[in-house]
Amino acid sequence: MLHFDELVSLFNTKLEQEIAHIEKRKPQNLYEPVIYTLNMGGKRIRPVLLLLAHQLYNNNFENAFPAAIAIEMFHNFTLLHDDIMDNADLRRNFKTVHLKYNNETAILSGDAMSILSYEYITQCQSKNYREIFELFTQTALKICEGQQFDMDFETRSDVSVDEYLEMIGLKTAILLAASLKMGALTANATTDEANLLYEFGYNLGMAFQLQDDILDTFGETTSFGKIIGGDIVANKKTFLMLNALELAKGETLSDLEKLLSVTDFNRQEKIQKVKNIYNVLGVVKLSQQKMDDYYNKAISNLDLLNVDENRKKELFLVANKMMKRKS
Amino acid sequence: MLHFDELVSLFNTKLEQEIAHIEKRKPQNLYEPVIYTLNMGGKRIRPVLLLLAHQLYNNNFENAFPAAIAIEMFHNFTLLHDDIMDNADLRRNFKTVHLKYNNETAILSGDAMSILSYEYITQCQSKNYREIFELFTQTALKICEGQQFDMDFETRSDVSVDEYLEMIGLKTAILLAASLKMGALTANATTDEANLLYEFGYNLGMAFQLQDDILDTFGETTSFGKIIGGDIVANKKTFLMLNALELAKGETLSDLEKLLSVTDFNRQEKIQKVKNIYNVLGVVKLSQQKMDDYYNKAISNLDLLNVDENRKKELFLVANKMMKRKS
Repeated sequence: MLHFDELVSLFNTKLEQEIAHIEKRKPQNLYEPVIYTLNMGGKRIRPVLLLLAHQLYNNNFENAFPAAIAIEMFHNFTLLHDDIMDNADLRRNFKTVHLKYNNETAILSGDAMSILSYEYITQCQSKNYREIFELFTQTALKICEGQQFDMDFETRSDVSVDEYLEMIGLKTAILLAASLKMGALTANATTDEANLLYEFGYNLGMAFQLQDDILDTFGETTSFGKIIGGDIVANKKTFLMLNALELAKGETLSDLEKLLSVTDFNRQEKIQKVKNIYNVLGVVKLSQQKMDDYYNKAISNLDLLNVDENRKKELFLVANKMMKRKS
Repeated sequence: MLHFDELVSLFNTKLEQEIAHIEKRKPQNLYEPVIYTLNMGGKRIRPVLLLLAHQLYNNNFENAFPAAIAIEMFHNFTLLHDDIMDNADLRRNFKTVHLKYNNETAILSGDAMSILSYEYITQCQSKNYREIFELFTQTALKICEGQQFDMDFETRSDVSVDEYLEMIGLKTAILLAASLKMGALTANATTDEANLLYEFGYNLGMAFQLQDDILDTFGETTSFGKIIGGDIVANKKTFLMLNALELAKGETLSDLEKLLSVTDFNRQEKIQKVKNIYNVLGVVKLSQQKMDDYYNKAISNLDLLNVDENRKKELFLVANKMMKRKS
């Protein structure tokens, strides 16, 4: 049994081999941005979750690698195209592809990455080949849907909390879910086991995203690695904000709406005022509660797996680690 | 046996049904541009070639439709993203998606179309399922490569005729080739037959693209439906131009190079001067010869098919029709 960190190394070695193959492809101008993107790094959490799920049932990873590469390739494709759409300058401290090269290259290299991810799916050796291909395709389509919902929400003033949860489910949680399920499928686990792992990934992904929302406002800059309050400054419709808008009444509501409409403001002052409203309305507690609910569901999904407890340990640890928990 | 026009109608009816399904999907802002693109029309030549190849071996089209829809969906995806990259205003007399909506929508809806094409591949019922998926993926990747080569050529001054032929092969011919092969695969034809149909499609596609180059300069505006001489005005590196550059010497070469570098010119005058050079160098005849070579190869591919001559008739007719031949 390999630990999370060992699997990250193992995956990165495998990815480097694949990058070496891609380097030989032509035209260079198409594949160079693909390699540049893959080399930006990242935590490789999705492919490693896939390998961890696979390892619950099978210690030989050969059949799992193509699916793991496909997942990481697809994830990086979505980041590349999202960065064009968001007009982002930096990704993991690297210049984004559309800035380093240009928009045309970023669009086309992204398209190639999306198809390359399918090329890795074609390499999967498994009796569940067809199911893996279908799951991958449905997941990919839902991620596009999630991205569109997210873009739609920016200009809508009536987004509900439930719609938000559906959106982050599509945009973030289902790729973790699909990664875990694909790991089960490449190891020929039963449908029940594969579905439990999907649920585990979905619930963990939801908890993780809610934690992200909370930390963006209430985290500590140094440990979180981002500037605190960015969501508030950008008027982002997070779980906190949408709950606040649903709960606020009278003066609190008009204060909040005013804060959302001011264009000329002191950054720290705006952040502090919105945080105060969040505290008054109890949305921080509410968000933590929701996050805990998803996390606890994820843990019970793991409990139900028909696998020796020792084999599950690493997935429990990863879930803990992702949620930055002490226990 | 159905004729070409009957198959166009049949395919369009099927496509309309699929569009009705897509209309129900959410978010609307993601799928509306997909439907808008599919409704622009077009000759549906690729899916109909697929159905014609299928019909050589099997009169029941049920198993061929998902692959035919996948091919048309993917082709339309490439047009959508190409239009962003080329900054085109019109496509089949409709406003392009990025102008009617915006760049973000055009990128994301294109991404969704690419994945939707794979969703149709997942619906293929065939013992050749895996081969169809692999062929589709390899073809899709090569089309991206062809598009990148085409973009690279714009800024290169040393493009060879052979490189050009490789590029149009990737960008245009292999999708016709793959369509025909997929039709054979959905009908469970033998590998030899499927490969012959691939060759036929490739050679026909090459002949068709060379004809396109010739007609852009020497066609008649009314019958061709485009303004004649557009390639010359845009300094496009077509088969004619690249051959002219390889053959021209002395004064002719310097005249041609001057014509390629002038920025302020009379349109008709430039077209006429380049055409004169083409005639002097004999590149028109040379291009027609090359086109005929490919066409004749395509016809001999059809001849070799192990199918009753009567069943092949419709494919001969389509090849003739595409090349606007009298016989």
